[in-house]
Amino acid sequence: MAPRSWWGWGNVEDAVTGAEEDALVARVAGLLPDHDFTVHQPPEVSDLDLPPSRVVVPNALAAIASPDPEDRVAHARGKAYRDVVRNLEGDLAHTPDVVLRPRGEQDVVDALDWAASAGVAIVPYGGGTSVVGGVEPRFDAPAASLDLTGLDQVLEIDRASRAARVQAGVLGPALEDQLRPHGLTLRHFPQSFEFSSLGGWLSTRAGGHYATVLTHIDDLTESLRVVTPAGVSESRRLPGSGAGPSPDRLFLGSEGALGVITEAWVRLQDRPGWQRSVTVDFDSFDDAAAATRAVAQSGLHPSNCRLLDPMESMVGAGLSTKGGLLVLAFESADHPVGPWLDRGLEIVRDHGGHPGRVVAKEPGRDSPPPTSPADAWRSSFLRMPYQRDAVARRSLIVETFETACTWDRFDELHAAITTAAYDVMTSVGAPGVLTCRFTHVYPDGPAPYYGVYASGRWGSLVPMWDEIKAGVSEAIIAHGGTITHHHAVGRDHAPWYARQRPEPFAAALRAVKAALDPRGVLNPGVLGL
Amino acid sequence: MAPRSWWGWGNVEDAVTGAEEDALVARVAGLLPDHDFTVHQPPEVSDLDLPPSRVVVPNALAAIASPDPEDRVAHARGKAYRDVVRNLEGDLAHTPDVVLRPRGEQDVVDALDWAASAGVAIVPYGGGTSVVGGVEPRFDAPAASLDLTGLDQVLEIDRASRAARVQAGVLGPALEDQLRPHGLTLRHFPQSFEFSSLGGWLSTRAGGHYATVLTHIDDLTESLRVVTPAGVSESRRLPGSGAGPSPDRLFLGSEGALGVITEAWVRLQDRPGWQRSVTVDFDSFDDAAAATRAVAQSGLHPSNCRLLDPMESMVGAGLSTKGGLLVLAFESADHPVGPWLDRGLEIVRDHGGHPGRVVAKEPGRDSPPPTSPADAWRSSFLRMPYQRDAVARRSLIVETFETACTWDRFDELHAAITTAAYDVMTSVGAPGVLTCRFTHVYPDGPAPYYGVYASGRWGSLVPMWDEIKAGVSEAIIAHGGTITHHHAVGRDHAPWYARQRPEPFAAALRAVKAALDPRGVLNPGVLGL
Repeated sequence: MAPRSWWGWGNVEDAVTGAEEDALVARVAGLLPDHDFTVHQPPEVSDLDLPPSRVVVPNALAAIASPDPEDRVAHARGKAYRDVVRNLEGDLAHTPDVVLRPRGEQDVVDALDWAASAGVAIVPYGGGTSVVGGVEPRFDAPAASLDLTGLDQVLEIDRASRAARVQAGVLGPALEDQLRPHGLTLRHFPQSFEFSSLGGWLSTRAGGHYATVLTHIDDLTESLRVVTPAGVSESRRLPGSGAGPSPDRLFLGSEGALGVITEAWVRLQDRPGWQRSVTVDFDSFDDAAAATRAVAQSGLHPSNCRLLDPMESMVGAGLSTKGGLLVLAFESADHPVGPWLDRGLEIVRDHGGHPGRVVAKEPGRDSPPPTSPADAWRSSFLRMPYQRDAVARRSLIVETFETACTWDRFDELHAAITTAAYDVMTSVGAPGVLTCRFTHVYPDGPAPYYGVYASGRWGSLVPMWDEIKAGVSEAIIAHGGTITHHHAVGRDHAPWYARQRPEPFAAALRAVKAALDPRGVLNPGVLGL
Repeated sequence: MAPRSWWGWGNVEDAVTGAEEDALVARVAGLLPDHDFTVHQPPEVSDLDLPPSRVVVPNALAAIASPDPEDRVAHARGKAYRDVVRNLEGDLAHTPDVVLRPRGEQDVVDALDWAASAGVAIVPYGGGTSVVGGVEPRFDAPAASLDLTGLDQVLEIDRASRAARVQAGVLGPALEDQLRPHGLTLRHFPQSFEFSSLGGWLSTRAGGHYATVLTHIDDLTESLRVVTPAGVSESRRLPGSGAGPSPDRLFLGSEGALGVITEAWVRLQDRPGWQRSVTVDFDSFDDAAAATRAVAQSGLHPSNCRLLDPMESMVGAGLSTKGGLLVLAFESADHPVGPWLDRGLEIVRDHGGHPGRVVAKEPGRDSPPPTSPADAWRSSFLRMPYQRDAVARRSLIVETFETACTWDRFDELHAAITTAAYDVMTSVGAPGVLTCRFTHVYPDGPAPYYGVYASGRWGSLVPMWDEIKAGVSEAIIAHGGTITHHHAVGRDHAPWYARQRPEPFAAALRAVKAALDPRGVLNPGVLGL
């Protein structure tokens, strides 16, 4: 495995350097000409004033315990902008006291037993790509980071039902590598795909590849196996059931606070042979949104239906548009998708859209070279976290947030978010821009995803971002959005989540927490639990 | 409103009589020639030895309380075969002490307050069509049946998002009547549609019109408003969210044990203009099942994909087939569905299917006359509960049960169920037949639905059926099925549900019950709570 950055995104060797770095800085300088681009170097781990570990691991767990400082530091937090900046600043508060790497489920059971008896909190850790403070032991108790990436095997494949039993610690690429020989794929590709785990996706209700129908990992979940302090919970493999409230839906989104997911049966797809995609240009964003809504309500179920506003098109893909770009794609392993795309094109034209060239892929033929606007945007999408790190070191504020709302509220919510973002950028002295795209669309509403690119001041970046984030979060909660569509709640979203969820449901969750985790050792603080 | 039968299904005036009755009896006699068809009359309510009411309703609730004996008797149980037979036998154990008919949500709150203070159990009651003992006060405490059918209004329509805020007591036809002027429909048509309520569908996770994708009412739920003894829970209207475990998914399927659903925002559909359907004949049931699986995994998302085995084809629609009949249909409000059906036909032909005539409907044209096999089956489907009552009075055992499983387990599960059903029919001396159909299909498995038609003995019908039911339920639980795909758990399924659900999840549910309903007044006994 390529060495990972302890302070920033992904692999050390994939960091932005050289010509890419120069071009990036030049591009940002065009956007924010008055910014101070002085580069700040990350500290050496050996220079950090890391507090000594407060825990003594029993002999039974010694073989899976790592007290190594770099290990502890690398598990101290996720990969949000505020995490990376705090790392760059050498601020390593709340580093876990030890990292535990289970080799199998019994190690997880033993770790939870020990934690309950020793008063140590357990923070389940998959790929560590949380952007909401989900893996950060932001509390006073001694903490163990439970790194599950050793549980990385596909254990069983049921070809007839297109499903697999998979250990939860597997990262995206290793999972797909094990499914590919069977002609199958999970097709769950969050931006973090390369570095995030199945268990992380499940426990945070991650959003994946499909823009419609199968949007969240929830929909790909057939059953779960979860280690709780009160015992192991294993749901029955079922394609659908109406037997009481869904057991899986209680653990999906529980963010490690109710148990540690060790295995899941997941629903797979045949690898698609037919694909057609097109990028549609619009003269107004209102038209673009209306077209997107019409497609979402058409029953055509596109695999991609991603709307980029003009600023997102420019910043994300270097493309100019007056009103917006809609990336519309259909795919199938069963049949050519021409009629689907044809009707999609009729709909977007009816709403004033100007479709570009259709890119087609058929079974047995190579993909066309990546020359379409959609591909440009996608390449940029995968490099984005690395680029974020490169400019964070130069005091840029670069971060995203996301929500979902019903169509009737979108205009008002979008306006409120936009106003709040620019107002706070102004008030904290961080001039910048806001971009918007729809990552997923439903018949009853879109999931808008926003990017902030602003000129920050070294030493004040985290409080500046936190103020912007608080401003837009207030707008989201006040105007009918959800505090998160697929980034999860973690610790960063807890204050707004507390206002979003109905109070009786909060009481229900607290009761479940007390029943399954009576000593409160599991990821204290996430979901406000 | 037409007068309802207190002892059997639906409207008194729609009962099977005259020529229909003669033909039905003749048809059953062909199947079970040795059966004794003596007709048994239902008792008069005034002849029943109904125990006096044990509750004194406070003045504040007097206006909504009915102590009327026929009202109490009509609310004593649902419409399962064993319910109807017990009614016919005059066995009215566990009749509620009073029927309360809230006029608005405050009446529900007041009823729950009174119940908690007076030690009276509340049994939420919508259309009363439970087939699992869900509305029967099968316990010793005094009981009030909370009849919610007065809450029958569509309160708000959001045309842009295609959603409506609806009171939970509305029955199917009244709901559709209120949506029709807006060109919208919920398109949730369980067999009980005419007599069941939105709140009942939600609290039991009912299965509806669509054979794929939107199978359960869960998928049509945008938000819920639920009165619990711990306060009112109202979730946010969202098209999708990843903010913690889903609040709605905790109440969906809670069967009145955690709260009383008073309102929901539901997702609607445009009324479909284009429809194409075909009935496909197969020479072997294995081929038919394989074809159905291929369609379910194709991504074509048919609206109907109902497979009838030869016995179901014969008993349900009077149609002869060697291997099975697949009713395959596509519909859309947006586009002609020819390409969808064409590919569906290719798939079924590849699996040995023989498609019949395609029946097409287009916008602005009248539907074709109901002459297709699918229509014959559907007409029979809606008359079935009335016919069940007619033959129950003649000592026939006529009942259904259902499950779901992954494709890899279907053959084994189906064989085990079939063996168990015939074995128990033999051992209890009730010769008969078992029919099977798939009501819903998923990429990873079917939802098989079974019918039992057997020759019973008057006076022993309920224990005979209960033995058959226990036998098939054991087979379901032993061979990887769910004890219910869409009929709910209620009281009748509780023993098998207790073995199906993971124990930590059971502990979680009990904790939620204690938090939201600390006095335990809500529908005691359902879900084993």
